[in-house]
Amino acid sequence: MATDHIYLDNAASTPVADEVMAEMLPYMKQQYGNPSSIHRFGRETTRAIQLARKRVAEMIGASPREITFTSGGTEADNLALKGTAIHARSREPEKNRIITSNIEHDAVLEPCKDLESRGFVITYLPVTGEGLVRPSDLKNALGKDVALVSIMHANNEVGTIQPIKELAGIAHQAGALFHTDAVQAAGKIPLSVKDLGVDMMSMSSHKINGPKGVGALYIRSGLKIAPIIHGGGQESELRSGTENVPGIVGFGKACELAAKRLSQYQTHVSELRDYLIERVSKEIPHSRLNGSRTSRIPNNAHFTFFGVNGEDLIIKLDENGVAASTGSACSVKKQKPSHVLKAMGFSYEEITGSLRLSLGMHNTREEIDRTVSVLSSVVKELRELSPFKGKYA
Amino acid sequence: MATDHIYLDNAASTPVADEVMAEMLPYMKQQYGNPSSIHRFGRETTRAIQLARKRVAEMIGASPREITFTSGGTEADNLALKGTAIHARSREPEKNRIITSNIEHDAVLEPCKDLESRGFVITYLPVTGEGLVRPSDLKNALGKDVALVSIMHANNEVGTIQPIKELAGIAHQAGALFHTDAVQAAGKIPLSVKDLGVDMMSMSSHKINGPKGVGALYIRSGLKIAPIIHGGGQESELRSGTENVPGIVGFGKACELAAKRLSQYQTHVSELRDYLIERVSKEIPHSRLNGSRTSRIPNNAHFTFFGVNGEDLIIKLDENGVAASTGSACSVKKQKPSHVLKAMGFSYEEITGSLRLSLGMHNTREEIDRTVSVLSSVVKELRELSPFKGKYA
Ligand SMILES: Cc1ncc(COP(=O)(O)O)c(C=O)c1O
Ligand SMILES: Cc1ncc(COP(=O)(O)O)c(C=O)c1O
Repeated sequence: MATDHIYLDNAASTPVADEVMAEMLPYMKQQYGNPSSIHRFGRETTRAIQLARKRVAEMIGASPREITFTSGGTEADNLALKGTAIHARSREPEKNRIITSNIEHDAVLEPCKDLESRGFVITYLPVTGEGLVRPSDLKNALGKDVALVSIMHANNEVGTIQPIKELAGIAHQAGALFHTDAVQAAGKIPLSVKDLGVDMMSMSSHKINGPKGVGALYIRSGLKIAPIIHGGGQESELRSGTENVPGIVGFGKACELAAKRLSQYQTHVSELRDYLIERVSKEIPHSRLNGSRTSRIPNNAHFTFFGVNGEDLIIKLDENGVAASTGSACSVKKQKPSHVLKAMGFSYEEITGSLRLSLGMHNTREEIDRTVSVLSSVVKELRELSPFKGKYA
Repeated sequence: MATDHIYLDNAASTPVADEVMAEMLPYMKQQYGNPSSIHRFGRETTRAIQLARKRVAEMIGASPREITFTSGGTEADNLALKGTAIHARSREPEKNRIITSNIEHDAVLEPCKDLESRGFVITYLPVTGEGLVRPSDLKNALGKDVALVSIMHANNEVGTIQPIKELAGIAHQAGALFHTDAVQAAGKIPLSVKDLGVDMMSMSSHKINGPKGVGALYIRSGLKIAPIIHGGGQESELRSGTENVPGIVGFGKACELAAKRLSQYQTHVSELRDYLIERVSKEIPHSRLNGSRTSRIPNNAHFTFFGVNGEDLIIKLDENGVAASTGSACSVKKQKPSHVLKAMGFSYEEITGSLRLSLGMHNTREEIDRTVSVLSSVVKELRELSPFKGKYA
């Protein structure tokens, strides 16, 4: 167990909150009925899911019947993309194009590739140096053949928040549906599906102090899409499989908590984040903040430390009690350079030297102080070992 | 909470065992790292998943790399069927047929329907009055166009165990792959994938005192199938999404427990089951045990009470403190008559009067005594209210 470790990888996953745990536990050993059962045990868990659905819906200004529970953000993205594409093609075969961006998570990009192999055409929009999709680019890319536009709300690596309301409006004008992957945004910034005008929105529980293995897709009332997992039809015929009751209960509670503490979260986390950015920028030479200063998720800080290898940095930080990331957790193990930073026009050196520090509710100012001092000395140490020594040390 | 209630719906779901809970809990609040992260928190959860994979594999005589974790039995079935069909067609377009049976769970039948809409041809094998697939029927149905045969191991309604080894051998002789849905069998009877000779096998955690929301597909080493959920590629590129770490850990422990206590489970549960069957047969007139006497899962008792409506029976039993089911949990809410009993040749009256009592490790002889006396009086009461009164009362 890593108790003294400072955890600054909250964009990868978060601890389950005490209040969330407390609500989940009874659904393990006492209220273990299958929600499809008509006896008392089944009715208990059916009610629990209803409450959770209401709580998730409330966090994003939706109504409960617009929430479909899934096994996580990845499945929600898959359902949105494939479900819409397959359904659209069955009705209007000429609608065979999807527009997305170059900086989406693999949970969007890989389903797009799969759809490509099934005859769909995918258009990838570029982004600015800050990681922003230009509304004019979307406008130009649209056409009558577009079934769906999918643009993420907040980017998981650099934290850039897209102008979703504007983009959704543009998509609708051209007769396309609009989905947003809000896995990194929901529960962290105020967010209403009605105000944004999106047709679908993906969420994930474990990013907001809920349990892993559960997520949801908001699907605007009246919108029809095809299921991707078939069976007993548990989630309104849209998603099958015995419901993960404790997980759903926990996710519901996590959403309720997130909604309640939203301004507290934003203040706490963005203050820490700004303090971190300020100190790093001042105290560590040849460092640079990446992404947007203004349109940014409150818990994300993403830097390039020139002359340093980001992976070495993470390993050294870990040895010194700080858990950080180069960016997307899942691409790290594959050792492929970040497609997000590439799309933002970063050079190989800028990509290599990058580090993501993502904060959470439980982080403290004292932890940031310790992090900055560890980071300073580790960056220095690595630069001294580096072939670029002369340049940055 | 239903504390005094007697729970006889263990085929629908089971309580999480204490030992399972104990292993899961640390992965909620302390060891919450994303397994894809390279720091300490990530390594902890990566190791936890490795151990769980080993335990699941050991229960079925597989090797760890042959286990792919999913969100449950339903997703495992979807992955087996769609993954095999899509992959087969991409290699050998003439292989566009799947053979299954009339008594499969919806988690197999519905993916088959989906594949039908995608141009595949599905052959449904009939069953005997006891719910057995005849090997000769499979032999006759096979042909060079068959990519996959999928026959369940133990049926979820009547508990009949199929001759899987023989069926798999027949499928292989004809050059087809063989999948079995072992959601109701794995952990309840001795079972080795090598001995059975199956290529794929589905399992679900919540049926064997593990948590809901997790399952696995065994895929024989060397066999290639296509993923159905795309993204970060977490499960060897076959299944994407941040891993449900506590769920996977719990499932692993549940498998270890099940394997350890297998003979104890079989003895305890089948003794209770036989005692229940004996008493019901003797004490409740016009009742009949359905399914096979010999080829039967140890925890299943399935009866027809003539002149009684099964749903009324369940409601009355519930009022009197006994949780039971008419059969498949998910079809009950849809109020469609059991396709399994229909396939077994049951009349409308025989289907209507059916009741499933499924036992678990924690049930006691005293509970069976109480159940029989409640059942006797409830059946009597309902028959007196029934239009068939004269016939059975
Ligand atoms: C932007 C984004 N989308 C999708 C996902 C996938 O969600 P999950 O981890 O629940 O599978 C993640 C996180 O991994 C993410 O950051
Ligand atoms: C035979 C069978 N197959 C598949 C399933 C589906 O598994 P899960 O409940 O994990 O989705 C079940 C149980 O519901 C079952 O009994």
